[in-house]
Amino acid sequence: MNNTLTPEEIVEALKGLSGWKHENDALVKEFTFNSFREAMSFMVRAAFEAESLNHHPEWTNVYDTVSVRLCTHHVGNKITTSDVQLAQRFEKISWVK
Amino acid sequence: MNNTLTPEEIVEALKGLSGWKHENDALVKEFTFNSFREAMSFMVRAAFEAESLNHHPEWTNVYDTVSVRLCTHHVGNKITTSDVQLAQRFEKISWVK
Amino acid sequence: MNNTLTPEEIVEALKGLSGWKHENDALVKEFTFNSFREAMSFMVRAAFEAESLNHHPEWTNVYDTVSVRLCTHHVGNKITTSDVQLAQRFEKISWVK
Amino acid sequence: MNNTLTPEEIVEALKGLSGWKHENDALVKEFTFNSFREAMSFMVRAAFEAESLNHHPEWTNVYDTVSVRLCTHHVGNKITTSDVQLAQRFEKISWVK
Repeated sequence: MNNTLTPEEIVEALKGLSGWKHENDALVKEFTFNSFREAMSFMVRAAFEAESLNHHPEWTNVYDTVSVRLCTHHVGNKITTSDVQLAQRFEKISWVK
Repeated sequence: MNNTLTPEEIVEALKGLSGWKHENDALVKEFTFNSFREAMSFMVRAAFEAESLNHHPEWTNVYDTVSVRLCTHHVGNKITTSDVQLAQRFEKISWVK
Repeated sequence: MNNTLTPEEIVEALKGLSGWKHENDALVKEFTFNSFREAMSFMVRAAFEAESLNHHPEWTNVYDTVSVRLCTHHVGNKITTSDVQLAQRFEKISWVK
Repeated sequence: MNNTLTPEEIVEALKGLSGWKHENDALVKEFTFNSFREAMSFMVRAAFEAESLNHHPEWTNVYDTVSVRLCTHHVGNKITTSDVQLAQRFEKISWVK
């Protein structure tokens, strides 16, 4: 089975995701925190969500920022429902603005 | 040098520390979070503060709670200014209520 | 269903668990690391195992040590197969001696 | 003061750093772990080193890999002694092969 989203479904999904964009076949967002310490703690918090969904981000940390890129490798790097779910989980982390 | 606090200084310090108590020669507080995941992320966040002050807590995690006990071992388990500083740092973590 | 272990099953389980003891209706072990930093990283690593089993430890960190206590609350603080599983997972973390 | 390394000093520094390369004015290495969980725990462990040196990496995690890029922004993205120090610290983390 393949849960790849259509372009219309991606547009719809983004309406519920603050600050996320559709770029190069991925859902992307840059999170900015108050410090490196906070950025790292966010990664730990978010990693638990990734593990529980068994779906993982590509993410880059530079000091107080974390740039997240979500797409699904085993369907050829397309956006799937798993990517939307993971983005939603990231948004629900209580201290993320 | 010895920065042990007098009983009066401890009373004064506690006025600025929400939810902390003086128990058995230590500053103590039980933090409750929304989940185990959040409790663990707090520990990571707080651990950076402990490292930067080179002063470390005794703390116990049970599911969504973290019970913190602060005292200073090398002065015979008394409360010192380092304990107050660490408690203040824990309070400043942005998502801690 | 209740997977509480009999005393004989606990003795048997402990044979495969290096350094674990049976104390006060729990499986316990004190882990000692090279530093606070390493102790905290172990807690993060082990927390992923706890989450994936949906079974969580009582554990206390003091500087470079992590004292773990495993028992199962909802069966009245007895040792169950979940505790043995979690202990086994902790033992498999690659850098734990 | 400016601790930028000369090309010769970079070559020399790399001799003591297993698996690190000089690429695009940075010291780079890709670490591969046994799992996402282990990769994340490494990032926590390494983050303490970054904080204690007050020098931070650019690093990207994709599942079980962590790609690290070290250079010094405030001297115009050149390699400095701080980058070498941080790389050395990463190498000393006990469970990193």
